[in-house]
Amino acid sequence: MEASIVLSRIGLAGLAVMGQNLALNIAEKGFPISVYNRTASKVDETIHRAHNEGQFPLSGHYTPRDFVLSIQRPRSVIILVKAGAPVDQTIAALSEHMEAGDCIIDGGNEWYQNTERRIHEVNEKGILYLGMGVSGGEEGARHGPSLMPGGSFEAYNNIKDILQKVAAQVEDGPCVTYIGEGGSGNFVKMVHNGIEYGDMQLISEAYDVLKNVGGLSNAELAEIFTEWNKGELESFLIEITSDIFRVKDDHGEGELVDKILDKTGMKGTGKWTVQQAAELSVAAPTIAASLDCRYLSGLKEERESAAEVLKEAGLKEEVGSVKSGIDKKRLIDDVRQALIWKGGCIIRAVFLDRIKKAYQRNPNLASLVVDPEFAREMVQRQAAWRRVVGLAISAGISTPGMCASLAYFDTYRRARLPANLVQAQRDLFGTYL
Amino acid sequence: MEASIVLSRIGLAGLAVMGQNLALNIAEKGFPISVYNRTASKVDETIHRAHNEGQFPLSGHYTPRDFVLSIQRPRSVIILVKAGAPVDQTIAALSEHMEAGDCIIDGGNEWYQNTERRIHEVNEKGILYLGMGVSGGEEGARHGPSLMPGGSFEAYNNIKDILQKVAAQVEDGPCVTYIGEGGSGNFVKMVHNGIEYGDMQLISEAYDVLKNVGGLSNAELAEIFTEWNKGELESFLIEITSDIFRVKDDHGEGELVDKILDKTGMKGTGKWTVQQAAELSVAAPTIAASLDCRYLSGLKEERESAAEVLKEAGLKEEVGSVKSGIDKKRLIDDVRQALIWKGGCIIRAVFLDRIKKAYQRNPNLASLVVDPEFAREMVQRQAAWRRVVGLAISAGISTPGMCASLAYFDTYRRARLPANLVQAQRDLFGTYL
Ligand SMILES: NC(=O)c1ccc[n+]([C@@H]2O[C@H](COP(=O)([O-])OP(=O)(O)OC[C@H]3O[C@@H](n4cnc5c(N)ncnc54)[C@H](OP(=O)(O)O)[C@@H]3O)[C@@H](O)[C@H]2O)c1
Ligand SMILES: NC(=O)c1ccc[n+]([C@@H]2O[C@H](COP(=O)([O-])OP(=O)(O)OC[C@H]3O[C@@H](n4cnc5c(N)ncnc54)[C@H](OP(=O)(O)O)[C@@H]3O)[C@@H](O)[C@H]2O)c1
Repeated sequence: MEASIVLSRIGLAGLAVMGQNLALNIAEKGFPISVYNRTASKVDETIHRAHNEGQFPLSGHYTPRDFVLSIQRPRSVIILVKAGAPVDQTIAALSEHMEAGDCIIDGGNEWYQNTERRIHEVNEKGILYLGMGVSGGEEGARHGPSLMPGGSFEAYNNIKDILQKVAAQVEDGPCVTYIGEGGSGNFVKMVHNGIEYGDMQLISEAYDVLKNVGGLSNAELAEIFTEWNKGELESFLIEITSDIFRVKDDHGEGELVDKILDKTGMKGTGKWTVQQAAELSVAAPTIAASLDCRYLSGLKEERESAAEVLKEAGLKEEVGSVKSGIDKKRLIDDVRQALIWKGGCIIRAVFLDRIKKAYQRNPNLASLVVDPEFAREMVQRQAAWRRVVGLAISAGISTPGMCASLAYFDTYRRARLPANLVQAQRDLFGTYL
Repeated sequence: MEASIVLSRIGLAGLAVMGQNLALNIAEKGFPISVYNRTASKVDETIHRAHNEGQFPLSGHYTPRDFVLSIQRPRSVIILVKAGAPVDQTIAALSEHMEAGDCIIDGGNEWYQNTERRIHEVNEKGILYLGMGVSGGEEGARHGPSLMPGGSFEAYNNIKDILQKVAAQVEDGPCVTYIGEGGSGNFVKMVHNGIEYGDMQLISEAYDVLKNVGGLSNAELAEIFTEWNKGELESFLIEITSDIFRVKDDHGEGELVDKILDKTGMKGTGKWTVQQAAELSVAAPTIAASLDCRYLSGLKEERESAAEVLKEAGLKEEVGSVKSGIDKKRLIDDVRQALIWKGGCIIRAVFLDRIKKAYQRNPNLASLVVDPEFAREMVQRQAAWRRVVGLAISAGISTPGMCASLAYFDTYRRARLPANLVQAQRDLFGTYL
């Protein structure tokens, strides 16, 4: 088909994983959409899927001009390309054909200050701008993402009906709200990603302790995570983790998880969260620990040498002696309790509702840990938490995320810290530190 | 007097604590120096001190022009003003009167990228530039700082003789060397400050555990730190810490340390180190933990409320029950061992020599912990370290720095991490995290 005769309601440029799926989602909800991609084959691919998945109202275009002119005014154009320079290049290519009152919506994981710069740049032509975090990955984009639009409120209102239809639908409505001015939508998405880093780290530590201290098999781990997903830990991450332990290795014995290299890649958002937290004088130690672990995971060869050098160390024997005294059932329960109110906060997590309620009870709550309900639970669970971390420490199994979280808790809940000594040292040798 | 008849060898602008003392140090070593400060009274103060402390060859000037013209060419001008915009303003005021071949040396704690920008800016006029970290505080500036000059090698050579005379003198020579191009001098100083943040934090944790788990008095703490300063922990920070415990409160009973507010201030270098480490994919958890503790120390009122809310928590009792079983002598020794190879690395620390030797043995050493000598000691001491951290955790006393260091050690020395699970999660829901 290609160029459509009636104008589309909205446009989407950038048809990799995210763009393609979000475009299909929008079209499926009945909003005629124009799509474009630098490389033409992805346009064809998307048209093909639109036909196959249900004759959706989607038209493909092969030049920025055709694409832009196929959209009704004021035009709303979502872009979903690689963050950074590609966004600037795409804006340049498209905005040439756009008019005052039109709007660009960047749906990528963009650094919020880039969004703020672009807001000013396109405003000179009268073009409006939204930086919109999109969460939920490929599946979410196709069937219901969580959307975090920030920037021009007018631009948001132009597409509010679309966003509310394509977003994930939960009990209390669609997962989208106007976040605020400037780059706030990107900022919230960045922090959200940072929290996911932390959750993934904590789950991996729980796995590590259960496997290497508790001696659990993959089958047992799968069962425990499935069990956990029925209770207070219910969340997307716990669910997929239970699935992971069940995937068989096609090319050999056992499960795939044991064949996966222990090096974790990353994109920029976790790093940005840590840097931004420091910038704002906020302690975010669990996220920082998860970032450090990704960095250290990358040093595989160094770690192998270190393990060799420090092996005679008798560290191995310690693990052995700790293990021999383990009550498996209690360990599993301790780990669950240690994880609950840290691993919980993740997309599709029941835990998020409880956080919401705490802030509804008291919008000025200084920290979750002083909310009466959370405080009570933490007090109940802290003994288990301390046991898990203590055990891991004596076994030589690192749990940087759990340790950092506990240190945060124990620091935050103390009226008097040894910071007086640091201050005294500063006074004594000049306060330039 | 004021304007001198013979030209000075060097100039120094910015006569607050650091500038005044460094100028006097230079003059005392026999190098005629011109000084200048935006506010005239500090010039008078400095002249006064130069007379009183020994008739040093120092001349004061009250305008940028007089100041610059009083220095022999090629002129070398050190500036020691507040980092950031004041440095730009001072450069603008002075460089107007300077010529090609002259050199500006910024001795402040400056962000290295600012130095790199300024190198290019002044180069347009043919002016050379050094960014020079200065360590040792007020005392150091006056009687022998550690100097970290980076930037123009030619400019360094112009004042090498001066720097070598004014720097601290140790066994293997003066504490100054050309660091490298660009902002490298500032970069090294920044990391140095970050390490000091970490050391101060670890010492404060040792204090906390000894005081609140071990029940030690200030008198006992003073004695222990004095003792420690005679051995492998010998360092400036351990020394001043022992002094701190002895300072009486002028206005009441007991020691001053207990009256100091437990809020630690800070300047920018610790934060920069943490942000830069993240930027370079380097795990620096001990420094990050120390920064977080400073942030949390600032939330005094929040911490007091949290302590109130979580008090019934039975956390107090835990401390009690842990304390009752304590062997004080062993605790002190454990804490010393836990501190040694973490708290050691600080200005004037014997530990630094050992680090140097390790890198002389193997310039390509991937990490100190795999140096045979360090590895051996760590293995010996790790049991004590684990005991201290474990004890603190069960007592509810936060030791974020010690925990983070231990988690780092236990992560780095493992050939196989649970990073495979995180990677599997990423593969399952899109690798954008
Ligand atoms: N993947 C996820 O699960 C996920 C989840 C949430 C958010 N995000 C964010 O969403 C955005 C898109 O992610 P993605 O994974 O779908 O795609 P991606 O791999 O980040 O980027 C590929 C897309 O960018 C385009 N592109 C790259 N450089 C370009 C340039 N210079 N000019 C024009 N187009 C250019 C590509 O066009 P060509 O086909 O012509 O090369 C392609 O359409 C990113 O910011 C990502 O971080 C991703
Ligand atoms: N203090 C230490 O122990 C220590 C140790 C190592 C490094 N440093 C670094 O050394 C530098 C100097 O430290 P400091 O503690 O001596 O001084 P400071 O308190 O950081 O700065 C005060 C000095 O800056 C000048 N100044 C401020 N704004 C100015 C402006 N706009 N134009 C011109 N001059 C301006 C002041 O002049 P006026 O008198 O006219 O206000 C005064 O001379 C800083 O970068 C600091 O971080 C300090």
